[in-house]
Amino acid sequence: MKKIIFISLSLFFLCYLSYSLFSLVKDNEKPYPYGFTSENASIQLEAEALLKSLPSPSNCRKYLHYLTEEPHMAGTEENYQLAKYVRDKFIEFGLEEVELVEYKVLLSYPKEIEIEMIEPKSYKASLREEGFFRDKDSYDSRVSIGFHAYSASGEVLAPVVYAHGGNPEDYDRLKEMGIDVKGKIVLVRYSMPYSYRGFKVFTAQARGAAAILIYSDPMDDGYMRGEVYPYGPWGPESHIQRGGVPFDFICPGDPFTPGWPSVEGAKRISPAESKVLPKIISAPLSWRDAKPILENLAGPVVPSKWQGGLPFTYHVGPGPAKVRIKVKMEEPVTSIWNVVGKIRGREEPEKWVVIGNHRDAWVYGAVDPNSGTSSLLELARVMGEITKDGYRPKRSIVFCNWDAEEYTLTGSTEWVEQWAEKLKKDGVVYINVDSACSGPLFDANVVPSLKSFLTSIIEDVQDPNTGLSVSEASKKIMGEERIREVIDTRVGSGSDHTAFLNFVCMPVINMGFDGPYGVYHSQFDNFYWMSHFGDPQFRYHSTMTTIWGIAALRLANADILPFDYVAYAEELSGYLAEIEDDVKNLLESELSLLENNLEKFKSQASKLNQEIKSLLSQDSVPRQTQASINTALMEVERCFFNQEGLPNRPWFKHLVYACKYTYAPEVIPGITEAVREKDWERAKSQILLLSKAVEKASSILSKI
Amino acid sequence: MKKIIFISLSLFFLCYLSYSLFSLVKDNEKPYPYGFTSENASIQLEAEALLKSLPSPSNCRKYLHYLTEEPHMAGTEENYQLAKYVRDKFIEFGLEEVELVEYKVLLSYPKEIEIEMIEPKSYKASLREEGFFRDKDSYDSRVSIGFHAYSASGEVLAPVVYAHGGNPEDYDRLKEMGIDVKGKIVLVRYSMPYSYRGFKVFTAQARGAAAILIYSDPMDDGYMRGEVYPYGPWGPESHIQRGGVPFDFICPGDPFTPGWPSVEGAKRISPAESKVLPKIISAPLSWRDAKPILENLAGPVVPSKWQGGLPFTYHVGPGPAKVRIKVKMEEPVTSIWNVVGKIRGREEPEKWVVIGNHRDAWVYGAVDPNSGTSSLLELARVMGEITKDGYRPKRSIVFCNWDAEEYTLTGSTEWVEQWAEKLKKDGVVYINVDSACSGPLFDANVVPSLKSFLTSIIEDVQDPNTGLSVSEASKKIMGEERIREVIDTRVGSGSDHTAFLNFVCMPVINMGFDGPYGVYHSQFDNFYWMSHFGDPQFRYHSTMTTIWGIAALRLANADILPFDYVAYAEELSGYLAEIEDDVKNLLESELSLLENNLEKFKSQASKLNQEIKSLLSQDSVPRQTQASINTALMEVERCFFNQEGLPNRPWFKHLVYACKYTYAPEVIPGITEAVREKDWERAKSQILLLSKAVEKASSILSKI
Repeated sequence: MKKIIFISLSLFFLCYLSYSLFSLVKDNEKPYPYGFTSENASIQLEAEALLKSLPSPSNCRKYLHYLTEEPHMAGTEENYQLAKYVRDKFIEFGLEEVELVEYKVLLSYPKEIEIEMIEPKSYKASLREEGFFRDKDSYDSRVSIGFHAYSASGEVLAPVVYAHGGNPEDYDRLKEMGIDVKGKIVLVRYSMPYSYRGFKVFTAQARGAAAILIYSDPMDDGYMRGEVYPYGPWGPESHIQRGGVPFDFICPGDPFTPGWPSVEGAKRISPAESKVLPKIISAPLSWRDAKPILENLAGPVVPSKWQGGLPFTYHVGPGPAKVRIKVKMEEPVTSIWNVVGKIRGREEPEKWVVIGNHRDAWVYGAVDPNSGTSSLLELARVMGEITKDGYRPKRSIVFCNWDAEEYTLTGSTEWVEQWAEKLKKDGVVYINVDSACSGPLFDANVVPSLKSFLTSIIEDVQDPNTGLSVSEASKKIMGEERIREVIDTRVGSGSDHTAFLNFVCMPVINMGFDGPYGVYHSQFDNFYWMSHFGDPQFRYHSTMTTIWGIAALRLANADILPFDYVAYAEELSGYLAEIEDDVKNLLESELSLLENNLEKFKSQASKLNQEIKSLLSQDSVPRQTQASINTALMEVERCFFNQEGLPNRPWFKHLVYACKYTYAPEVIPGITEAVREKDWERAKSQILLLSKAVEKASSILSKI
Repeated sequence: MKKIIFISLSLFFLCYLSYSLFSLVKDNEKPYPYGFTSENASIQLEAEALLKSLPSPSNCRKYLHYLTEEPHMAGTEENYQLAKYVRDKFIEFGLEEVELVEYKVLLSYPKEIEIEMIEPKSYKASLREEGFFRDKDSYDSRVSIGFHAYSASGEVLAPVVYAHGGNPEDYDRLKEMGIDVKGKIVLVRYSMPYSYRGFKVFTAQARGAAAILIYSDPMDDGYMRGEVYPYGPWGPESHIQRGGVPFDFICPGDPFTPGWPSVEGAKRISPAESKVLPKIISAPLSWRDAKPILENLAGPVVPSKWQGGLPFTYHVGPGPAKVRIKVKMEEPVTSIWNVVGKIRGREEPEKWVVIGNHRDAWVYGAVDPNSGTSSLLELARVMGEITKDGYRPKRSIVFCNWDAEEYTLTGSTEWVEQWAEKLKKDGVVYINVDSACSGPLFDANVVPSLKSFLTSIIEDVQDPNTGLSVSEASKKIMGEERIREVIDTRVGSGSDHTAFLNFVCMPVINMGFDGPYGVYHSQFDNFYWMSHFGDPQFRYHSTMTTIWGIAALRLANADILPFDYVAYAEELSGYLAEIEDDVKNLLESELSLLENNLEKFKSQASKLNQEIKSLLSQDSVPRQTQASINTALMEVERCFFNQEGLPNRPWFKHLVYACKYTYAPEVIPGITEAVREKDWERAKSQILLLSKAVEKASSILSKI
């Protein structure tokens, strides 16, 4: 094997010599520092060549098959066994300092759930999914019934109101129609594009509903979208989207240790003190179970956009459908296990490039999250191969396999809370892959400083289906309708990058390949689904390994970190423009102060980019110079750290990014939320906070 | 009664004196000649006041009840009886020269239709609609089965292909997917917004399909849109859209007498010579009958926009569904009866303002067309009242109640062909109302010269629901989405205005009130439907009487005809701009000649508008002057008459308007079609034709 690698290395060296030179010429045209001197770039490209050649689809298939063999919710024995499997693989592949990291956190399981329509006729929801005989995972009795983690326990008997997506504007519309949801059970749809179910519960609770049922409408992820399982990737009639419903847009992580790690002996608040636990009952339904209820709603016909894909005209109610819901949850404080391993850096081992994916799944989790786990394991193997003969990256790469992400981003949040000071000082970038693939369409969210960085990688990695670059292939798939950028620079929540970005202000990348996927959080998100529809040849799994590996290795090796703050400044100006009209008359001086500071920041960043370019065109950059520039570059993102956090959400400490309550990105959140609530005093102080942060950032850049 | 009218007249005179003065002041600001001197305007407004006060919703209800009592297809005894009813009413209400006008034309009835799926399972389509016990018209055995008039007769046994809307781009897409429709049965959807079913048959035939089935998808006019009959206005599962499928976009009217009237002894061509009779079998289906076929199509999943509202994922086929269709049509040359009556004009009885609506229906036709017939009868009554005591309009008003519109615009076309020379000379305007109302949203198509004219009327007539003007109410209903102008100046086909506009170049207005209406051409378009959903209080029927009456009376009385050719010229420039990019390099000189002529036309028209304004501000306009201006104004639209007709459709003789094969408007059709086919020689000669026509028009205006 060593021989093969040596030959490969040599061959690739030759091939890449010319490529490197060409690529460096190209780099001169790029507006950001790629980060390597000519000499180091060629070494880097040799390693990248291996990263392109070594990942094996059949390995990815093998890992995924193992990982998805049994249902493995966080806190279960099965998931603990998988933690040990990942640990053993990390060790086998040559990672260092591999360990299981245990936290004791609040989890939530269904003890008893009954949902029964008692008027105008009787119907008892099965809460179960129907199997397909050729897919053993689709009729395993260990699969849980449909439930929402952290639902309140209790019993409700009330008429039902159909409230569309369960968003505030939907309730406003109901009110206009004269429909009051107080004391009622609201029946709402899961949303496409995704909107966090916890926000639906939060909104229903705020509007006075007694309970909420959230079902999957065939218009959104079922037969109206295309072929359903077992014939296609969309959700069949019995599929149930499980999921957590805590209000983790207020504070993620263990509900009993908000803002500090759930380690041995940690202080724990009481359930009553928690701001993230729902007070109403919530449960998911398949459309098979929702249909009898919807069919028995009278009242006004729904507004035209509320009609779903079931074969009758929808009505809002209330009633005559009257439903009894009984929910008993079991909520233990119990162990979860992250797995962490490292490749220690050569020159700056204390600097961490962190990569992570979670392991726990609502059922089998073939897409979510174990396609990512499979890519991660393959990356560990490939990195092991690359480093086997003594080669080491300059900085350390930290491999993390999180637990209990599905509950409330728990494993990653506890770990970040535990390592907060270390990460603020030495965390280079966090690269998250939750679902590595449900199809061929690359999708990423990154902080603005890393957009060019990631773009250059996906322009360089080949899409397995088309032979185009991943970047071109994704643009082609989106076609003229181009619903989004391939790489978006607005970062919300919804996965394990959240604590890194919002609690310790590390730059983050969150990425995956998307496709038609109607079985999210159902038992049909399993190996059969993946091997028939999602990625039958497992080549997107291995392509993700490549992209992830190149990104990690470039960041771990760069002479100068490839952070582009010109882009960051421009992005920030754009965010500001969005709220400008609302505040410019009221807060003119504060706004112009901020704008001036942003201009300065941008011009400092631009100057620095030029300097870096010229430094990198030399044979080598003195260590001292590298270190001082890199330290500064890392410090800039930390300028946006605000110890107080957002006025209503102190856990969220980044001044530029947070999530909305839907998990969607909320940019310059302190200012935006104050403006939305027309709290001009608060808006003023938030603008000043950001203004100071930007000033500090330019001052850091200017001192290099 | 006389006394009441006298008092009414007097009262209204007082009220309107001030109003008239105000209105004349307002007129001075309007960019077009309203058409009356101050003195004549006040007389006109008195009559209009009666037109606002006399129409009675309960009369409209009574007529509609009578008209819709039995199914009355063209050529049936029932429809003949209704012709006599309308004739008798016309006479009773005081119209003059009332007569039944008979033509013998080719009609088409179903003798035997069988549609049966024989593979992969057996299903025989009922072709019948299910009744609702409280609506006697919904289970009358005299209702015909679903059929398409002028379908070919024959028998086909073939696999089925789903071809979405059956438009050329749909077949192109199928081809891309590798699906050949040759020899297959294509199953396509009726379209919303409306596209003429005859075009679907034409296209299927051109693509080599053996037969076509057209069904009503619940996404388009059924439960996905809202409540269905008998609970709401949309189509229930068994509703069938009957209809004609001849290619009357090539030539309307009796297929055996294309371009000349079907009078006694007329020459008749053979079926083989006709260009408008389909050569393939065609039949309509309810979704109830289409569902088993659609469910049994395999092959690729449909493109996302092709998915309909039935509860499964649609596939294109071909097969496994294999269907046998047997159609035997009976196609007699038989009698139809228009009813024509007049109010003879006082000063220029030879000048005809023609108003018309058809009477024949596929079943009961409560909306289509007898809501219009009901409004027409009420207008006859009201005009009778107004003219009872000797008052007469200046010009004649001709009331027409057409037959066999549903077949191929037959009754009106034959009449226009018969009276072509008279109408070219003396036809002032034709005002068509097919369906007077299926709801509260006013909708009109008019030639550009009449847009301001009609706008001023609907700004002046009150909407019965809101108290706003009809114009404001309609804008309000459309809301922000404003899918169209209330009054559109592009005129296509689809009703009886066609021959007036396209065969003799008379200015036309085509109007109605629209609403949610999913029972078009089904047995559910009946009195129950109208009295529950469409216009339960019949106030839109009577409002249409008012609008129609005011329009007719203004045109019949105007000192100077209210034709605005500045608007026409501007509209024409707009049409030209749409094709300009395609031709400007190739046909630069022809195009600039046309543009110059248009500029001249516009400036002549503008000069004339000014002159008319100043004339009308005087006490009276000398008869001689009036006559010469009015003659010129009428001649201008005739300038667009081209004896040759369109290159491929010689019956269509208007240079500015025709219909596309879908019935949608095709503007500057000769040029547009040549450009589309890249036939630059033809485009050149068509531009020159139009250029000459415009030149002639300005020369007419300049000579006044």
